[in-house]
Amino acid sequence: MQLYFSPLTCSLAVRIALYEAGQEAAFIEVDSLTKETRDGVPYTTVNPLGLVPTLRTDEGEWLTENAAVLQYIARRFPAARLAPTDARGLESLQQWLSFVGAELHRGLYSWFLDRQAPDAVKAYALQKGRSRLQFVERHLAGREHLLDQFSVADAYLVTVLGWSVVTPVALGEWPALSAYVERVQARPSVARARAAEIPLYLQARARHGEPDLSFLAKG
Amino acid sequence: MQLYFSPLTCSLAVRIALYEAGQEAAFIEVDSLTKETRDGVPYTTVNPLGLVPTLRTDEGEWLTENAAVLQYIARRFPAARLAPTDARGLESLQQWLSFVGAELHRGLYSWFLDRQAPDAVKAYALQKGRSRLQFVERHLAGREHLLDQFSVADAYLVTVLGWSVVTPVALGEWPALSAYVERVQARPSVARARAAEIPLYLQARARHGEPDLSFLAKG
Repeated sequence: MQLYFSPLTCSLAVRIALYEAGQEAAFIEVDSLTKETRDGVPYTTVNPLGLVPTLRTDEGEWLTENAAVLQYIARRFPAARLAPTDARGLESLQQWLSFVGAELHRGLYSWFLDRQAPDAVKAYALQKGRSRLQFVERHLAGREHLLDQFSVADAYLVTVLGWSVVTPVALGEWPALSAYVERVQARPSVARARAAEIPLYLQARARHGEPDLSFLAKG
Repeated sequence: MQLYFSPLTCSLAVRIALYEAGQEAAFIEVDSLTKETRDGVPYTTVNPLGLVPTLRTDEGEWLTENAAVLQYIARRFPAARLAPTDARGLESLQQWLSFVGAELHRGLYSWFLDRQAPDAVKAYALQKGRSRLQFVERHLAGREHLLDQFSVADAYLVTVLGWSVVTPVALGEWPALSAYVERVQARPSVARARAAEIPLYLQARARHGEPDLSFLAKG
């Protein structure tokens, strides 16, 4: 397998899922600003929109969109138990993947990760996002994971909520979310994935002359 | 089954899927402005975020998020062939459901359907959305549907693209998208679903003193 990723973006969720499943993959870094791989290959030849993740499977298939890639990994490596296998559990998984993808990732956080987004966009997204964060806060109060046990939906949610530290989303306002992030980031697969990508993220920022965020390396 | 819907919103996709499957359901209208059912019941008691669709299944389950609800209907009524059953086809379906939900619905059109969204947000979303529309345009050129045959992903896409007429998205710029919308809107299930909801949409607008859009009734 080959995973096209940009450090600490939503493709981190796929790396976490691969680590959970004990799978090796070639990780091909895409510079999220130049949209080139580190070898200088234009990433738009792989993914026309320049979006990560793109996964090339061992069967030669090309997969994009986190919800689809994460469900592929869960299905392909069932021993890792990354998704429920009963119908009701699968419905819940798909519900959360959709919610995290549309409401939190695309509707809220993505505007802060977009260098061109005007401030008015960010302010409105932040205001509107509060109800979404509150909704997940209520769900996670008294729960360990989104479903009964760790699933690819958690890999996605912990990735997205992890962006809070570089956005104005004050996660501290939501105690269950804060505790969840701390707990899930301590999970070995997540800690290992973050440890692999934080240095690459800091290097990418340095390449582009962006402010230093090396506090991330300590966290 | 009970479907909580607001006329012509993304819940239209679920009605289309139910019609395709030849299933009866109780359709409970939610006023998208007051967030009450037409009987005056606060919809937030059903869905805390006030988002449609919510489907209550015959087994008493509550389902939200279009991607999850649509896949539930496809799985529950396999004879309607609303989703591929092979792994590769399922991956494509999930990819498109995610793309339509995150990139087109949430990332582009939802800002125009949001009465509070500032103009700067709309302008930026429109600019950014062009590449996404172009991507689907390329995919649909020479194709009848998103996958090899009609699927719940088409029910979702035709619903979302159908909003173009009440937004500044000039669908005419994309010939394959325009032809797709015309073709799929002529499909009996889609035509019947739109015919059921357009009058309700116009009534809701009239209730709230919004400008008349009765040209929709002719389309």
